[in-house]
Amino acid sequence: MPQVLPPSDIARAHAAKRLAALATPPGALGRLGEAGVWLAACQGRVPPKPVDNVRLVIFAGDHGVAAHGVSAFPPAITGAMVRTFLAGKAGVSALAAAHGVAVRVLDVGVDEDFADLDAATRAALTAHKVRRGSGAIHVADALTAEETAAALAVGAAVAREEVAAGAQLLISGDMGIGNTTPAAAMVAAGLGLPAAEVVGRGTGITDEGLARKKDVIDAALTRAGARAQDPVETLTALGSADLAAATGYLLAAAQDGVPVLLDGLMSVACALTADRIEPGAAAWYAAGHRSTEPAQSLALAKLGLEPLLDLGLRLGEGSGAVAAVPVLRSAVALLRDVALLADLPG
Amino acid sequence: MPQVLPPSDIARAHAAKRLAALATPPGALGRLGEAGVWLAACQGRVPPKPVDNVRLVIFAGDHGVAAHGVSAFPPAITGAMVRTFLAGKAGVSALAAAHGVAVRVLDVGVDEDFADLDAATRAALTAHKVRRGSGAIHVADALTAEETAAALAVGAAVAREEVAAGAQLLISGDMGIGNTTPAAAMVAAGLGLPAAEVVGRGTGITDEGLARKKDVIDAALTRAGARAQDPVETLTALGSADLAAATGYLLAAAQDGVPVLLDGLMSVACALTADRIEPGAAAWYAAGHRSTEPAQSLALAKLGLEPLLDLGLRLGEGSGAVAAVPVLRSAVALLRDVALLADLPG
Repeated sequence: MPQVLPPSDIARAHAAKRLAALATPPGALGRLGEAGVWLAACQGRVPPKPVDNVRLVIFAGDHGVAAHGVSAFPPAITGAMVRTFLAGKAGVSALAAAHGVAVRVLDVGVDEDFADLDAATRAALTAHKVRRGSGAIHVADALTAEETAAALAVGAAVAREEVAAGAQLLISGDMGIGNTTPAAAMVAAGLGLPAAEVVGRGTGITDEGLARKKDVIDAALTRAGARAQDPVETLTALGSADLAAATGYLLAAAQDGVPVLLDGLMSVACALTADRIEPGAAAWYAAGHRSTEPAQSLALAKLGLEPLLDLGLRLGEGSGAVAAVPVLRSAVALLRDVALLADLPG
Repeated sequence: MPQVLPPSDIARAHAAKRLAALATPPGALGRLGEAGVWLAACQGRVPPKPVDNVRLVIFAGDHGVAAHGVSAFPPAITGAMVRTFLAGKAGVSALAAAHGVAVRVLDVGVDEDFADLDAATRAALTAHKVRRGSGAIHVADALTAEETAAALAVGAAVAREEVAAGAQLLISGDMGIGNTTPAAAMVAAGLGLPAAEVVGRGTGITDEGLARKKDVIDAALTRAGARAQDPVETLTALGSADLAAATGYLLAAAQDGVPVLLDGLMSVACALTADRIEPGAAAWYAAGHRSTEPAQSLALAKLGLEPLLDLGLRLGEGSGAVAAVPVLRSAVALLRDVALLADLPG
């Protein structure tokens, strides 16, 4: 597996120097100044190029735990939402259209065959399918070791297809009823935390559901035992096909030196796992939006990332990252187009 | 003066109903759901129209207090920055270009004549000039009563020109070395607070400068006395030509039923003053960006507004509001383009 090289320190230093030389008061650009410097380091260019070609891949899959009362929604919603993405009518579709972000949805582990779709659409959707549904992690492994390897490879292949299509910034999105349970378990494994600290309400479960979800994560962590200390074993024991594929996608982005804007819990749990597999990968990631899920904040803190937005979105799908794309574009515009103090008229 | 009517309650109720009917989990759109409903109420349309035509007017002026050590920058910077706006090379110029926002800069009270500019540019820039500089508020009134009335009328006329040009959303920007001092004094007057609670570091003064700034605001409030209880008298005693014009602009927007995205301290101090002149005006305003100036947060809390962004920007110019324009566009896109639950496939 290729190693992760860090973003360019030389470009970062030049960009910081340019930021300080802009005709603006010191520090006045705040987070936008920092984000512009980060993008310049990732691109190895000062000033950074505009981020026109932004590409979102939504990794869809079902989760065995969804049958055990951990979600406010039934598993059949996963497939229904995949069809809504294909129709361009989901929340993230609307945001992506508004901000010029390309959207691709992949069925990596949905528990149905999409037999009703036309052949070409179905072929594209399921070309990277690893399995139908993933294991209920409190009672069984999510995947076999072979499936984990396949899902990681799928994600990497997809990232490279998106890079070949000109991606200047990648986003990973998610769809899968029950997916905050394995994602929170992945964060607990990565940070060595108990279930009680990582569990959250997802799309809106009751107190009773929340308690059940904590128990499921607890049981899963106990079942995984010491295997949780290894990031790939974590995916096998506690993850899912879609989360393993998203991890492979984020890892490949870092390996290929393409910056990533992270979304909510699923995206950040996979980023944490990618950074465990290849330490330093997170240097290629920025955080788009603060999730209401505690596990996302815990994982971001570990990765040293602070979200750009905090709008109370809890839609998943990659929506928080897509909403944050214009913030990165603001950052680039400021570092590129503002006069230097030396050039100020008068 | 025309009265301010509230945004449409009928449209608000219909928009809230549409929001609840979207194929998204309840509350999952967070602040974006609320912002979309607000825009629908302002437009009287459900779903709201896309906010394509967004127009920023920067009100520039100098302030007598700037000669008294309340700013990190010399007064000559005001004119230099006006030229930078005209050249399209300021921070807000870069952001406005990135997000398709029209920018107009007006010299309402700059303490110079711009004699070096070509005749047409100078004529457009200074067409609405009220005076050269405004009074040092700790020792004298900022304006005469006639100048305050003229500046309010200027702002209203400019707002109506922008509405005639198709503005679907208005933004007020500011440029003027020393302007956080009168703006903080306007907030103190509006909220009945002492200088110590409203004073902030502006573009970055030292501890010594901060203490001096507090003394200047204290002296100004003492000098104004009971006149601070009247919003128009507040502008005369404690404001400036540019701040009075921005107040007139925000007031006219509310009177004409055009929504406004507020920026930092200057914009919010003027919004507070507009709402004091015509209670209810603030129903037409949303807050773009959290300022590091305490007076902005205090005034926003009084107006019941919560900023969409908190990126640590302290550039002024309208930049925080312009950076937040894509957030409102996200809100519109979600309320317009997401499928209704009833239409979900499967």
